[in-house]
Amino acid sequence: MRFDLWGTRDEAKPLSPSITKLLSRVMGVDTDRDNTVEADRIVLSESRLGEAAKAALGKIVGEAKLTQDRDQRMARARGKSSLDLLEWRAGEEISAPDAVLAPGSEEEILAILEYCSDNRIAVVPFGGGTSVVGGINPARGEFDAVVSLDLRRFDAIEDVDPVSGLATLGAGLSGPHAEMLLADRGLQLGHFPQSFPYATIGGFAVTRSAGQNSAGYGRFDDMVRELTIVTPRGVFHPGKQSPASAAGPDLKEIVMGSEGTFGVVTRVRVHVHPIPQVKRYEAFVFPSFAEGANALREVEQQGTGPTVIRLSDEIESAINLTSSDAIGESSQAPQGCLCITVFEGTFEHAASRHEETRNLILANGGVSAGEAPARKWEEGRFGAPVLRDSLLDAGALCETLETATDWSNVPRLKAAVGDALATALNDSGTMVLVMCHISHVYATGCSLYFTIVAAQDDNPLEQWRAAKKKVSQAIEANGGTITHHHAVGTDHMPYMTDEIEPLGVELLRGIKRTLDPAGILNPGKLLPAGSGKCASASGESGTGQAGTSGSSAR
Amino acid sequence: MRFDLWGTRDEAKPLSPSITKLLSRVMGVDTDRDNTVEADRIVLSESRLGEAAKAALGKIVGEAKLTQDRDQRMARARGKSSLDLLEWRAGEEISAPDAVLAPGSEEEILAILEYCSDNRIAVVPFGGGTSVVGGINPARGEFDAVVSLDLRRFDAIEDVDPVSGLATLGAGLSGPHAEMLLADRGLQLGHFPQSFPYATIGGFAVTRSAGQNSAGYGRFDDMVRELTIVTPRGVFHPGKQSPASAAGPDLKEIVMGSEGTFGVVTRVRVHVHPIPQVKRYEAFVFPSFAEGANALREVEQQGTGPTVIRLSDEIESAINLTSSDAIGESSQAPQGCLCITVFEGTFEHAASRHEETRNLILANGGVSAGEAPARKWEEGRFGAPVLRDSLLDAGALCETLETATDWSNVPRLKAAVGDALATALNDSGTMVLVMCHISHVYATGCSLYFTIVAAQDDNPLEQWRAAKKKVSQAIEANGGTITHHHAVGTDHMPYMTDEIEPLGVELLRGIKRTLDPAGILNPGKLLPAGSGKCASASGESGTGQAGTSGSSAR
Repeated sequence: MRFDLWGTRDEAKPLSPSITKLLSRVMGVDTDRDNTVEADRIVLSESRLGEAAKAALGKIVGEAKLTQDRDQRMARARGKSSLDLLEWRAGEEISAPDAVLAPGSEEEILAILEYCSDNRIAVVPFGGGTSVVGGINPARGEFDAVVSLDLRRFDAIEDVDPVSGLATLGAGLSGPHAEMLLADRGLQLGHFPQSFPYATIGGFAVTRSAGQNSAGYGRFDDMVRELTIVTPRGVFHPGKQSPASAAGPDLKEIVMGSEGTFGVVTRVRVHVHPIPQVKRYEAFVFPSFAEGANALREVEQQGTGPTVIRLSDEIESAINLTSSDAIGESSQAPQGCLCITVFEGTFEHAASRHEETRNLILANGGVSAGEAPARKWEEGRFGAPVLRDSLLDAGALCETLETATDWSNVPRLKAAVGDALATALNDSGTMVLVMCHISHVYATGCSLYFTIVAAQDDNPLEQWRAAKKKVSQAIEANGGTITHHHAVGTDHMPYMTDEIEPLGVELLRGIKRTLDPAGILNPGKLLPAGSGKCASASGESGTGQAGTSGSSAR
Repeated sequence: MRFDLWGTRDEAKPLSPSITKLLSRVMGVDTDRDNTVEADRIVLSESRLGEAAKAALGKIVGEAKLTQDRDQRMARARGKSSLDLLEWRAGEEISAPDAVLAPGSEEEILAILEYCSDNRIAVVPFGGGTSVVGGINPARGEFDAVVSLDLRRFDAIEDVDPVSGLATLGAGLSGPHAEMLLADRGLQLGHFPQSFPYATIGGFAVTRSAGQNSAGYGRFDDMVRELTIVTPRGVFHPGKQSPASAAGPDLKEIVMGSEGTFGVVTRVRVHVHPIPQVKRYEAFVFPSFAEGANALREVEQQGTGPTVIRLSDEIESAINLTSSDAIGESSQAPQGCLCITVFEGTFEHAASRHEETRNLILANGGVSAGEAPARKWEEGRFGAPVLRDSLLDAGALCETLETATDWSNVPRLKAAVGDALATALNDSGTMVLVMCHISHVYATGCSLYFTIVAAQDDNPLEQWRAAKKKVSQAIEANGGTITHHHAVGTDHMPYMTDEIEPLGVELLRGIKRTLDPAGILNPGKLLPAGSGKCASASGESGTGQAGTSGSSAR
């Protein structure tokens, strides 16, 4: 990944003339301006890691595994939200980690965390760097320095148990690398978020990644059996007693979603399955989003068993059903809402699931559109973020956001989010294209995923921050979760108190106090207001905060 | 429920002459001795609730809802493990709660918890009283008094959303009462643990109940969308952002399994589904347990979709396939391992799931035994604990225990547990019948449920405690969880440090400190060693423990 793009320069495709014309004529994007940026013009913060710390940390990981190289620090300075990508283009100084460490064992990580706890150094665990919520952007906070802890050397597959369908994967394995190691053994994980090409196993776990096959294989948090997490207080293995247990609260559910604020996940034991014998595809078109959503609900509540099931609204469907060269050209946009289904498993299993699902969809107003749109979706499934690179370079604003709610609340939430996006961006003086789809279904509700394309104004960072604030407020006010699968990071942190109540925030702070008493781990993320720096309740913190009292009782 | 039995006196069936003869001749049980006990001969601890506390608590809940009546205190003095039932028969003084409170609102509970926090009174939340691990037995600990907080007035159904398949159920509703209220609306919860006739919605949640339909509808913790829990620090509603969220750790997973030690669960929002159109039944017989277990594994890993699937080992199968009058009579015990399957849903869904499952079972060595054994199992599914009443009264020792493990580890764990039970009970001078079944299957493993019948020796309490200790050690040493669905209570508490590691215990203690700083909630349960009395880290505890320092960092 290039520092200022999702993908590489080679992957970036120039926009088709018809899209360029649409951006220019309808939205008023100045497509002639060059919005690309060169690496050597970036102003990066100076490294503030002292010589003593450098020597000490270098001794722990080996000198070759600690670097202050500019390119390495740049590559770990920002995630991949549109705000991140726009920041590179804005010309301001970019805060980068003061050094990058690449430890090779849990013992080394424990020693790093102990040293950093005692020496006022913040630590940001780093996997694939694909956060779209500011999750890996280094925040020095009140610490003297901040280092990026790269997990790339945790890249092994261990303890494969094909009978139980279990394998332990290194947290630093990327999606494709993990699938390759499993495929050598005839196995598959089946977790395909849009970030799959770059994101890592550890990142999937600590952000509660959903994955496009969630209908069939569950979310990543459903697949996890056990985690190894290195905390400043020691190494911990929640989940070892599974497949299921009544031995108290489920502690692995505390680690999942913790976004590097409680410890560094190094290994994840996951459920894996045999590579499916067959995949079957079928697309359908519904007359309306409401009818389509109702069919998806029936499918999930009756358990007819698709591996993938998705539904785009009218606008997204029109775009998906039009070839990219024809976008903006045709006066006759395709009508209706596109639904994609995929079925995997043994021949018999996939066929019976396909038939039962198909019957239910047809009974609920869907009309078959054949295999082609479903196969086309699968082929292009990881491509949208690369298209965003081209749109941002062309001066368009492009971003996604997501939420989830009960089935009965889907119409209200979809309308509220769509209105908030349109109003906020229209107020900034641009037309906006708002697209929406359902990509994850549950018995009691579903996700809603929104994509917007608009014109950048003079300050696109502030333009999007203002719109994001309005839409986040609309989500909280209309029964949605602030994030279904993008996680919290910095961008959703202001909404966490609403989301989990003040007592929930206090619970998380208490957990952080137990595991990370000095508060060095990924400060400024997940936990709102002051929680990066944890008040040490026991007065034994090594960060000079001794004596600060804990939160009061009642 | 009678205080010293699982069921009522009326439900108790005399043992058949053949079973009595078996107990007497083979095991040496003295079946002529009368082991029953009369209520008026029980020595109950005196109530130690002071007049001031009585007046204050009576003012909160209303005088009529606070009682120190002997029968009411007796009914909440012990759960329903065999140890509990044998204790009534042992003639020693029974510790009972000092009073029973029945609050009617969250506000009243909050006021109770605040008063008790300030006045050194322990509080034991009480649902159906069916704990088989000592979970509701009142432990005064270092407190001045202990009260039982009965949730029976939380018996409403609220906010039913049939579209999303959601309903909020009062924590005090029993299984049958909840199903009756749902059935009025054409809905079903589908959670049927063996304790179903008496156990409550709140109890299901805080003990992670599994339920005999877990293959189809999931464990109870899978069904929960949101909980309302009243803690001494306030009312909390974890899970409100579901159906699924990436907004940090899943805090409802901290409440589930907390066994009343963090707060009082008053309402549970659960996934419900339409009452199935049809139920289909089929039993199968496998030549061996290993072949049967392998077939169950294939069924679950391929997702063929039974609602119920169970497999008994050779000894349990022989007993299940023999009519109770014939037990001990026939020299030709039935051969093989009995497997029960049930399928529910729409006609089409149940039929296709039945066919796919049946084909896979037949391909894996199963032979159909028709519908009858499956229907017979369902009819008698809640009857075993009542039979235990008769066995205990007849002088036999009868108890169950359970664990779970990976599929690949099933043979090792089953053998180790069976050996430990046989050795320990043989050492106490009795023959023992050890039966085992798989009743809950997961993609990566399954549960193992053991039932033993032996002769009581002179001190059956110590006899079983010794055997339980040996078998618990065997479970921990052989890769099992100390409890798959019975929860921790007091009986499994000594094994929690092994189960979740010292850092896990410390995490739970930290959570308790946040929610219950005075440590009044169900002390002596779940958290090992000193955790009933929580060291108050912030020095603001109301229990006179101020100044005790928290656990040290690193």
